[in-house]
Amino acid sequence: MPPPAEEAVPVSPEERRARMLMSRVAEPGDVDACALVAEHGAETVLDRVSAVPGSGDPTTKLGGWADRLRATDAGRLQADAERLQAKFVCPGDDEWPSQLADLALVTSGQPDRRGGTPFGLWVRGIGGLADQTRDSVAIVGARAATAYGEHVAGELAVGCSVEGWTVVSGGAYGIDAAAHRGALASDRATICVLAGGVDRLYPAGHAPMLTRILRRGCLVSEAAPGCAPSKGRFLVRNRLIAALTSGTVVVEAALRSGSLNTARWAADLGRAVMGVPGPVTSMASRGVHELLRAGPALLVTAADEVIEHVSPIGTSLAVRRADNPRPRDQLSVRTRQVLDAVPRRQPASTASIARTAGLSRTDVAHRLEALLATGWVIRPDDDGWVAAATEPG
Amino acid sequence: MPPPAEEAVPVSPEERRARMLMSRVAEPGDVDACALVAEHGAETVLDRVSAVPGSGDPTTKLGGWADRLRATDAGRLQADAERLQAKFVCPGDDEWPSQLADLALVTSGQPDRRGGTPFGLWVRGIGGLADQTRDSVAIVGARAATAYGEHVAGELAVGCSVEGWTVVSGGAYGIDAAAHRGALASDRATICVLAGGVDRLYPAGHAPMLTRILRRGCLVSEAAPGCAPSKGRFLVRNRLIAALTSGTVVVEAALRSGSLNTARWAADLGRAVMGVPGPVTSMASRGVHELLRAGPALLVTAADEVIEHVSPIGTSLAVRRADNPRPRDQLSVRTRQVLDAVPRRQPASTASIARTAGLSRTDVAHRLEALLATGWVIRPDDDGWVAAATEPG
Repeated sequence: MPPPAEEAVPVSPEERRARMLMSRVAEPGDVDACALVAEHGAETVLDRVSAVPGSGDPTTKLGGWADRLRATDAGRLQADAERLQAKFVCPGDDEWPSQLADLALVTSGQPDRRGGTPFGLWVRGIGGLADQTRDSVAIVGARAATAYGEHVAGELAVGCSVEGWTVVSGGAYGIDAAAHRGALASDRATICVLAGGVDRLYPAGHAPMLTRILRRGCLVSEAAPGCAPSKGRFLVRNRLIAALTSGTVVVEAALRSGSLNTARWAADLGRAVMGVPGPVTSMASRGVHELLRAGPALLVTAADEVIEHVSPIGTSLAVRRADNPRPRDQLSVRTRQVLDAVPRRQPASTASIARTAGLSRTDVAHRLEALLATGWVIRPDDDGWVAAATEPG
Repeated sequence: MPPPAEEAVPVSPEERRARMLMSRVAEPGDVDACALVAEHGAETVLDRVSAVPGSGDPTTKLGGWADRLRATDAGRLQADAERLQAKFVCPGDDEWPSQLADLALVTSGQPDRRGGTPFGLWVRGIGGLADQTRDSVAIVGARAATAYGEHVAGELAVGCSVEGWTVVSGGAYGIDAAAHRGALASDRATICVLAGGVDRLYPAGHAPMLTRILRRGCLVSEAAPGCAPSKGRFLVRNRLIAALTSGTVVVEAALRSGSLNTARWAADLGRAVMGVPGPVTSMASRGVHELLRAGPALLVTAADEVIEHVSPIGTSLAVRRADNPRPRDQLSVRTRQVLDAVPRRQPASTASIARTAGLSRTDVAHRLEALLATGWVIRPDDDGWVAAATEPG
């Protein structure tokens, strides 16, 4: 019996093993592979591939898969995964980001387009992928970034991270790295979606940063460990960055930059597409300006504006820019929500404030620390918080 | 008999004289003055003002006008105008820019808003105001501009000027001056709309530039000679910059910059509103970014994009940005129109090419010189042009 296209229950151990093998055998994002696995299950597809005779035509897709299957050592793949502490997350798992199902809607009408819902994702790192990507935003851009672009990407990543948004990017030099580093500097989770296997810390110069990401977030790939990050795989990888997140911000991009491909995926997926402007004299901003001129992209200049666009309508509003905004207006909507829940007289616990604010305890704890550091709240004892008598600033 | 609200014929000499006086007596852009003059004619209004007794209440509008009328020496105003070689252009004159009639539409429903169709304009300089503003674009922005902003404003002004668009601005320090200077450097007409009288070369530091403008274009004001450029008059003046032109480009503007007021007027008048982005880290670009985020403004990065937005639909298309556009695609639509009209074998005269292209002889002459300088056409003899055998570049 084939499983339904969108599983609500975890796949069987046999199906999981078959999907792991398929992630090695088929090219990442192969539309046929995605569709066949979604319709018939990977076990059935692999049975069909195994039945191809050794003299099968390697130039056909099935022939190619058969060749790769013969060259794949299932036991070794399993051992590699264990050594890397890499999980293979499948649709139906608690850790599966259900928003990836949107990919099926985009590609269904476009048979020649690569990409589809991946049949599984390799994940290394800490934390659940579904949890971490529930409120997440992609910050991507040029490898050949300017100091300006890297500065802005870092600031946006810090601003989004502090507000509880997970920064997702591609680990490349330039904007991607600045975004990851901004999130790491805020001591928040960040997710790097790789084009090759999660064992390939690519680019090599970023191995230390990617290792830091492993300790604060995840490395993710649909390609099995051992797969090299080839050119085509970057474009297919971009669809995952767009699909995992609520919106994509392009910070700097020359014309024809790969990050514009991510923006196009985001637009097709109905995600927010945002662009950070720069000097019109800068080649590194020309692609962003074209995106803002011609495309569906929204101009953003700061993290609160990004958050406004990726938040469900009405839950966040970027502070209307004014020369002298009230200090309170400079806090984000969520942070104000926490501040409003802090009593003025009797200290309240983090848990109690979280209940009043209707936000998660972890989130509230982070925001309370920030409010403490900026003088909005005081902590008269270890268990309790009260609002400061006067507004800071 | 009151003249109709929108005169198709020139006003009588008596009415013209009365309007000149009213431009001294009423505050520029005074809605009541504009409406009364449009409805009853300035002669009738002035008769009414003259009838106010000397002990009339100077705090009422009529009382104030009566006081100012008593202090005005009509003969001296006439003498000043002659000395300055300033014309007073009225609706119905050949030189009257008929697009100003749109101001009546905007203000009619908003009685508390200052502005309305001016009952006349003081003009110093060369060339007809109607001709010069037919294809015109406003380039405005911050006085506290950055080197980046001034550079871009100058480039836009050169690009628009060379394509036959008259640059209109307000003569202020910063962006306005960079725009005027770009137009002057291209040896094209530029128009400066002043808040005070056309005798007041304000700001004083710009007297040399404003004097140069007199020789290549016009200084324009609705205030009579002798009127000082007071603060309120700048805002009223802004509506003329917006109304005279097909579109307004804001190059740099802090939040609450006066140039955003010009942009708002342009939007209300149905003109194109455009903004040039800059670094999000620059305070001088924040007002423009807000305009692009919140408002009706279109993002522009170069003169061809400005021209696309101010041209009637279909007559111009900004070259789609590409890494390696064909050299021919980098020419403007108008210049290509001229190039297409240049024969390949038998030389043709400027006049003949202008007829074929359907453009004015002056315009075509300028474009042919530019095409000659860049190698697109050759001039085998003094009277004729032929296309170059091979494309340059």
